[in-house]
Amino acid sequence: MTILFWVIPVVAVFALIVARCFYNSMMLEPAGTDKMQEIASYVRAGALAYLKQQYKVVAVVFLILAVILGILSFGLDLQNDWVPFAFISAGIFSGLAGFLGMKTATNASSRTAFAASKSLNDGLRVAFRSGAVMGLVVVGLALLDYSIWFLILDIFEDAVDQSQKMIIITGTMLTFGIGTSLQALFARVGGGIFTKAADVGADLVGKIESGIPEDDPRNPAVISDNVGDNVGDVAGMGADLYESYYGSILAAAALGAVAFLDDGAEIQIKAVLAPALIGAVGVILSIIGVFCVKTKENATTLELLRSLGRGVKLSAALIFIASFLVLYLLGIPNYVGIWGAVAVGLFTGEIIGKSSEYYTSQAYTPTRRIAGQSQTGAATVIISGIGTGMISTAIPVIVVVFGTILAFCFATGFDQSKMTIGLYGISIAAVGMLSTLGITLATDAYGPIADNAGGNAQMSGLDAEVRKRTDALDSLGNTTAATGKGFAIGSAALTALALIASYVTSIKVGLMKLGQEFVIVSGESIPVSSATMNDFMNYYGVHLLNPKVLMGLFVGAMMSFLFCGFAINAVGRAASSMVDEVRRQFKEIPGIMDGSAIPDYARCVTIATYAAQREMIMPALYAIITPVVMGFIFGVPGVIGLLSGSLASGFVLAIFMANSGGAWDNAKKYIEEGAMGGKGSEAHKASVIGDTVGDPFKDTAGPSLNILIKLMAMVSLVVVGLTVAYSIF
Amino acid sequence: MTILFWVIPVVAVFALIVARCFYNSMMLEPAGTDKMQEIASYVRAGALAYLKQQYKVVAVVFLILAVILGILSFGLDLQNDWVPFAFISAGIFSGLAGFLGMKTATNASSRTAFAASKSLNDGLRVAFRSGAVMGLVVVGLALLDYSIWFLILDIFEDAVDQSQKMIIITGTMLTFGIGTSLQALFARVGGGIFTKAADVGADLVGKIESGIPEDDPRNPAVISDNVGDNVGDVAGMGADLYESYYGSILAAAALGAVAFLDDGAEIQIKAVLAPALIGAVGVILSIIGVFCVKTKENATTLELLRSLGRGVKLSAALIFIASFLVLYLLGIPNYVGIWGAVAVGLFTGEIIGKSSEYYTSQAYTPTRRIAGQSQTGAATVIISGIGTGMISTAIPVIVVVFGTILAFCFATGFDQSKMTIGLYGISIAAVGMLSTLGITLATDAYGPIADNAGGNAQMSGLDAEVRKRTDALDSLGNTTAATGKGFAIGSAALTALALIASYVTSIKVGLMKLGQEFVIVSGESIPVSSATMNDFMNYYGVHLLNPKVLMGLFVGAMMSFLFCGFAINAVGRAASSMVDEVRRQFKEIPGIMDGSAIPDYARCVTIATYAAQREMIMPALYAIITPVVMGFIFGVPGVIGLLSGSLASGFVLAIFMANSGGAWDNAKKYIEEGAMGGKGSEAHKASVIGDTVGDPFKDTAGPSLNILIKLMAMVSLVVVGLTVAYSIF
Repeated sequence: MTILFWVIPVVAVFALIVARCFYNSMMLEPAGTDKMQEIASYVRAGALAYLKQQYKVVAVVFLILAVILGILSFGLDLQNDWVPFAFISAGIFSGLAGFLGMKTATNASSRTAFAASKSLNDGLRVAFRSGAVMGLVVVGLALLDYSIWFLILDIFEDAVDQSQKMIIITGTMLTFGIGTSLQALFARVGGGIFTKAADVGADLVGKIESGIPEDDPRNPAVISDNVGDNVGDVAGMGADLYESYYGSILAAAALGAVAFLDDGAEIQIKAVLAPALIGAVGVILSIIGVFCVKTKENATTLELLRSLGRGVKLSAALIFIASFLVLYLLGIPNYVGIWGAVAVGLFTGEIIGKSSEYYTSQAYTPTRRIAGQSQTGAATVIISGIGTGMISTAIPVIVVVFGTILAFCFATGFDQSKMTIGLYGISIAAVGMLSTLGITLATDAYGPIADNAGGNAQMSGLDAEVRKRTDALDSLGNTTAATGKGFAIGSAALTALALIASYVTSIKVGLMKLGQEFVIVSGESIPVSSATMNDFMNYYGVHLLNPKVLMGLFVGAMMSFLFCGFAINAVGRAASSMVDEVRRQFKEIPGIMDGSAIPDYARCVTIATYAAQREMIMPALYAIITPVVMGFIFGVPGVIGLLSGSLASGFVLAIFMANSGGAWDNAKKYIEEGAMGGKGSEAHKASVIGDTVGDPFKDTAGPSLNILIKLMAMVSLVVVGLTVAYSIF
Repeated sequence: MTILFWVIPVVAVFALIVARCFYNSMMLEPAGTDKMQEIASYVRAGALAYLKQQYKVVAVVFLILAVILGILSFGLDLQNDWVPFAFISAGIFSGLAGFLGMKTATNASSRTAFAASKSLNDGLRVAFRSGAVMGLVVVGLALLDYSIWFLILDIFEDAVDQSQKMIIITGTMLTFGIGTSLQALFARVGGGIFTKAADVGADLVGKIESGIPEDDPRNPAVISDNVGDNVGDVAGMGADLYESYYGSILAAAALGAVAFLDDGAEIQIKAVLAPALIGAVGVILSIIGVFCVKTKENATTLELLRSLGRGVKLSAALIFIASFLVLYLLGIPNYVGIWGAVAVGLFTGEIIGKSSEYYTSQAYTPTRRIAGQSQTGAATVIISGIGTGMISTAIPVIVVVFGTILAFCFATGFDQSKMTIGLYGISIAAVGMLSTLGITLATDAYGPIADNAGGNAQMSGLDAEVRKRTDALDSLGNTTAATGKGFAIGSAALTALALIASYVTSIKVGLMKLGQEFVIVSGESIPVSSATMNDFMNYYGVHLLNPKVLMGLFVGAMMSFLFCGFAINAVGRAASSMVDEVRRQFKEIPGIMDGSAIPDYARCVTIATYAAQREMIMPALYAIITPVVMGFIFGVPGVIGLLSGSLASGFVLAIFMANSGGAWDNAKKYIEEGAMGGKGSEAHKASVIGDTVGDPFKDTAGPSLNILIKLMAMVSLVVVGLTVAYSIF
């Protein structure tokens, strides 16, 4: 074990310590008036109740799957014995990241509102530092989990030599990702259903039917709406990006072990550790970036955005330089090329983020054009939002395509025959893209905190000036959220590609466990142990004329749509029960409208909670079962087709949904700022319908797709032994 | 040339004669009152003016492309010299089919309305026989074009032996398909934009703003709306299915020549002719089916649907038997297996149609649930329509997946090594699916005729009873249209697969033209002339770990979305100009509302026409340019990735759009029939918004996708010589 390894756990612990300091300093801020604290306590209680219920359901699913994984490990000996344990530990770490982020967020909202009553800069500081807790907890826990299991496996794993050992360790660790992916899927889908059911329910009855403003305490769903921001946009997003971060590092490590196998154990272990080291350096530089975020009083939205951007850009620039040093000091072969791949990742993420901003911000033409369509009614708003969202897929796809090819070419020094090194380069690009996560996630998590602070200020009857300040903070939230989603889906595309490559590598392990010694490629017998990825692709005929591959592609594409369909319908159903409940309370509890009676907030939270729990099971089961069934029926070619199909379609579909939803939201905001007749006009009503349709697009179905893609890849990896041993066709 | 060949042109001419007889007998029906004839003449003039303008634009594009193809043929010698001529002839035949169908439809509407004033059965007879003109013209002209070019090439083409000649002839004929695909794309997209711009414009201002009923002569866009039914749903659909039919036969013939190359020229030519012969037999049996469609007076919608279904089912059952006889008499090896593939095609088409019916008919739960969501407003209608449409993709995908694998297995006798024969089986399944086209297209084209008859009856002030009868006829139109789209997209999936296979075959021709003699596969030199499809796949590395293939997949998936985005936004923009024009007329022409002044119908037609022409150019250019650029940059692996990606995503996306759109339309109809408060209720208004959003989904973007997929494949086939000669990576 090289000494450099220890950088990783040290940085991980350091990140957690800094997070704790940020948390403490936030808790030392005054928590506001009694009224403010009371409202914050409702939201906190609702959020914790939700998370408790969600983790209960997740725990049951995890236990069942752990038993199945245990049978695969100990009973059938198809995989490493550590998998069931690490599966559970990965789930716990991921859940912990979500929980801590949410705890911080729910404590921060009233404090942010109170700080904003002093000055904009104070509000920004409290909200942003609280968001940074989330960012640092995610990267800290992920690197800690990585370090612990790396150490455990390094101690306990026996292998013929150091090189084989690295391959076994990284291959085993990769399968741990199924725990984070599953946890993330539940958090994103469950949280997404909760938040959008509450939001849609609150808006439809409160705003449209009863004509009361947003965040009005008379609306029975108002607390649920605020709870939703925390469980969906904070805990859900945290688990999502935890999964992205952890998964990208594991995938790159696994490919590093394979790609540099022939270069000797010393080089190989450096290639394995490089991704986590780049991540660790990124954590330190993210913290520096966090300290650079401040703004002046009376800052415009654009200035606020710039001050956040300054922090992110500083971190990115520092990582750009530092990653070169890391790779140079490690002495990986062609370190300049590998560094090129890191740089490609940093730039690709940046461009995808900018593209999201262009298509979803009211500062630019597309969203303004959608707002303009509101003058001919809701139908044209919806039509143009969908059209624009579909068109917005072009830039990210083209950027990812060229980014991938460049990362491949840089890493291989433009030698196309070095395929595994090229794939390592692609996975390193994903790590590069996510290396700024410590600070980008802070800008992300800060959005819902500011949003909740605004709600708190409104409900506590604070001065209108405070609400204006929190609104200024919040309105960035949409843009930073869109950027964050861009990172999540962009890195998912690269990571999923690396996972498919790792799947092919794991076939070797599967065949060796089965006792198969040779594969026949073009009439020639090649020992399994020395067969390359290309050999396996030829052996199984994983080319695009094999009907099994093509049928896998079809099913993969369909899975993305089916999953979104389930998620969207779930929001529709859950929102309907919310609407019924809010209507019932308005009818049955007299005095709500004149403020003489308090609505039953808790009942709304409970309804949304149970609806979310009920609805999140089905899509998750589909994601788990499909790769298994596909493997049984169509074998390896079918599975690789499935993963590629879901990757390509899911990537495009996710961007479409995120951008359509974001654009509708901001088109509404643009009208509320006074365009097309402003608030209360027919155009505004039409734009509210657009925004409501966009809610499940951008906050439930869309952001779950990148998890779906990776979860299916993870499941395939875990059951590869079953697939190579048994398949019908 | 075998004597059996002559069956094809004879049947083609016979189909055209029967179509002429149907046309004559329709024209002998009384054309209605003066008022009815006047209205019909407006619609006819508008439709012809539109088509004239469209063909002008298309002619320019065709001429430019013909020059480019001429350079590829004569200048660079990269393809057969006949291609530019056949490209133009294919475009003319396809355009002719659309024109004749539309001419029939515009003459039939007033006659159908008048016949319906006598009895329902009379109305059905006139409308359905007129639809059958369209069906028979499409299949007749397609088989005629096929026969003529087969003869020309057979006479003029020199080749070393009969077997090579067949490969050259069928390979050359396949590239002719680019003419029909391009014509179809323009017809579908242009017609689709026209019809939906008119429809949306008429509905938004007329129905919602001014509160006048559908098809009210006071609405300035009412004639455009009726014109739209003819240019979009008749001429557009005709060109679309002409392309499907022609393309499927050409693709199967080309694969037949390759698959049975080693069985000698005699067997080979039988395999080549089998698809067209099955098509020809299908034409005769479709005509028999057409004669069996009749209904009794006072028939319910369900009974009407059954009587149409009886005709289709009778034809399908007869084809099921007759295709066995054809293949048995031809004596193709494993004729039972090939017949199995035909049967798979027939059943697959049937199940996809049924699935569309289930998800889009108000007789079933999904559409009723969407209608139920209208009670909480437009947003929930849209959300549940999108969710349901996405979920509805599962059955068609699973059916096509198993249909494809079964067709492959049947054709090869479960021997997976016979890949080309398996692919031939898949393409034969597409031919089987479309073999009933003569009658299924009749049931399709009959819908807009009945719809127009209803409009005519309404505007001429006929008895309410007449409108009720035409409404009964029309309401089937939605279901038969959904079924027709299912056939178009289902057959497209199979045909596109065959086209990808043909692309691989054409690589050989490209390499030989370049003078390359060997390909190196797994270190071994294989002569190009004897290399198999598998060899080419290995040579180019067309497997799913090659980043070029994966990036092709991404771009392919993106292309489907981008294309839909353009089409949808085009409808939005065109509809906006219609809305402005209708509003202007209401304001500037006094007396429209009290009926004392006639609106300027022609101006609305002109606006929609020019909007459609302007907007259809861009998407078509993208479809043509992308495969060329992809070939230049990423070579063969990129192109095959592109085609596979657009196929998988486009297929799923097309079903989603068709079914969401159909379900919204029928949810509105369900409410209009009295559910959820019926016409005029808030729920109804919400459902109208859903229907309007669905219009470009189901009638513009969705049905164009299957053409896009095949057009890109056709373009790739034509430029394969360029791609293998030059590519950057």
